[in-house]
Amino acid sequence: MSSPERVHDEPGALFIGEIFEQPRALRALLEHDDEYARVAAVARERGRLVRFVGHGSSDNAATYGVYAFGLLARWTAVRDSIALSVYFGVQQEMSSSTVVALSQSGRTPDVVEYVRKARLAGAYTVAVTNDVDSELAREAEAVLPLAAGEERAVAATKTYLNQVAALALLAGHCGGDGARVAHGIRSVADQLEAALPSLEAQARGLAAPFAYVGRMLVIGRGPEFATAREIALKLLETCKTAAWPLTATDLAHGPVAVLDPLFPVWAIASRDETLPAVQEAVARVREFGATIVASGDAANEIEGAQYVLPVPEPTLPILSPLLSVVPGQLFAAALARAKGHDPDRPRGLSKVTMAR
Amino acid sequence: MSSPERVHDEPGALFIGEIFEQPRALRALLEHDDEYARVAAVARERGRLVRFVGHGSSDNAATYGVYAFGLLARWTAVRDSIALSVYFGVQQEMSSSTVVALSQSGRTPDVVEYVRKARLAGAYTVAVTNDVDSELAREAEAVLPLAAGEERAVAATKTYLNQVAALALLAGHCGGDGARVAHGIRSVADQLEAALPSLEAQARGLAAPFAYVGRMLVIGRGPEFATAREIALKLLETCKTAAWPLTATDLAHGPVAVLDPLFPVWAIASRDETLPAVQEAVARVREFGATIVASGDAANEIEGAQYVLPVPEPTLPILSPLLSVVPGQLFAAALARAKGHDPDRPRGLSKVTMAR
Repeated sequence: MSSPERVHDEPGALFIGEIFEQPRALRALLEHDDEYARVAAVARERGRLVRFVGHGSSDNAATYGVYAFGLLARWTAVRDSIALSVYFGVQQEMSSSTVVALSQSGRTPDVVEYVRKARLAGAYTVAVTNDVDSELAREAEAVLPLAAGEERAVAATKTYLNQVAALALLAGHCGGDGARVAHGIRSVADQLEAALPSLEAQARGLAAPFAYVGRMLVIGRGPEFATAREIALKLLETCKTAAWPLTATDLAHGPVAVLDPLFPVWAIASRDETLPAVQEAVARVREFGATIVASGDAANEIEGAQYVLPVPEPTLPILSPLLSVVPGQLFAAALARAKGHDPDRPRGLSKVTMAR
Repeated sequence: MSSPERVHDEPGALFIGEIFEQPRALRALLEHDDEYARVAAVARERGRLVRFVGHGSSDNAATYGVYAFGLLARWTAVRDSIALSVYFGVQQEMSSSTVVALSQSGRTPDVVEYVRKARLAGAYTVAVTNDVDSELAREAEAVLPLAAGEERAVAATKTYLNQVAALALLAGHCGGDGARVAHGIRSVADQLEAALPSLEAQARGLAAPFAYVGRMLVIGRGPEFATAREIALKLLETCKTAAWPLTATDLAHGPVAVLDPLFPVWAIASRDETLPAVQEAVARVREFGATIVASGDAANEIEGAQYVLPVPEPTLPILSPLLSVVPGQLFAAALARAKGHDPDRPRGLSKVTMAR
């Protein structure tokens, strides 16, 4: 779906265009369902300790992956340390591990090196990448396509969403319930497509009052902590807003002290077992007088929020991060424009993380 | 060691007093070396996948623990998700896991609940706590004392340092090299005791130019990312400065875009395999014109730093976080006072994390 009134050379046209492509990208991923099922079958034999590696948005998706594998497969999944392997040369025993390497470009040097070493250490290595001919794809034993289509904006949107969906799908198959997850993702694509125009209008309305905000907190809990991390990163990269993610629990018991009316808090509220923790954290935020934005499918259950950006509720609660991140993406696009930045040309950033 | 000129009712007297008690606290921990060795011997039999749980400073210490176990024992150690177990009720297979629960008070409800469930799931559960009669100590199969003495300031200092030392000692024994680590910690206590007065003087000199700073980044890599997290948390809690931790790598490839001359960066530089990554990140920071503070035993190797706070080099590189955090603690104390806050009475904070 594209937004018909969009002019192609206006600031942020690439970024917003790719946000609107997300339903289509999710459907393209599902065409590879069989490949995800096959890799899951091997992982069930080879390694039920899942180690994610990635930087930036890919690492945010890995935060989601911890919950997807925990909830859908009852497997332990962790964001592994790249530094231990790549800088310090520590070779750990990995014969019962599955490594899932996340890199849109497939060219992030230290992720490629981690995979090379993990494979030698006996891990089952899987590359999840948008470029199935990349160096990462060649180093890994198995390759799963992100299938998001070329991403031209510097700030990731559709590749992040497809990474989240890819991890849900893989975890679903590992847990023997892939068909239900695939069906859920398809429904999310439809829900998102229908909601995007109104979500964009809401996000635009929020841009003017936030144009002067220099710092923000974004909170979530459980799977939605991934969303909090990703929204904060979008705001940092595209708006130069010092936005930082925290779990709802960590905020409530420490950093809440830093809040004041000039320090707004964006809370991701989805209808799952963590909602009470988010509500409790927001109650603490209110004591300190900070402005509150609530998004997610339970946004309306956040008492005292000055701004509410609800999204549709998915058929499977674990898929809510596919929807709840979108108001944050759209807000970043609108806020960048309100601040006079071009989110397609953020100063000093490039598309490929050249970490080594 | 106490600082003789300290007046007991001046703002921050408790906080600074406890920073100065740290050498003594480290030595008190070492009196329990045998207990650490015994628990390590059981862990070697029962579970070589280490799962840390804790909040706030305890979670920062866990970040260190990932590296301590990786480097000293070649074991995989992870900061586990509390939410998966406690909120979502996911029961994972833990028969080859050792759980290390970190809580100064031993009363953090969701940590206690995690331990109860992990023990039922077959994990070897170890409480590392300052209160060996606490609820956490009763729930865990083994208890290791932090032995830091009563901590009265709200912001943790000596209990954080002893948690880091405790994890180094435990990892050292797990890797069969506990005696060397114990000896290294004893040397650090002596080095720290000798350096504290001059470190405090340096930190005081930094307070005036930073009194107006509203936001900061603190960067580190590898084991020193724990230090970056802990210094950022101290600044948040005691100074209301919006200070945030990032790995050097993540900063360089994204959030660097948000920097400007009003957004200083504190870099932790220690002489280990990650130093080139920190130097590279700082070079990127310089391009954006941000003020740079360098601390750690390689602080003088950070080019272009406007402020340099070097610390002694430990006999074992993995122990550098015991020294590099101290300038940050002392700076937080001095900055709080320069801003007119009392770090012993931060608004709205209490000593025990009541997360549940």
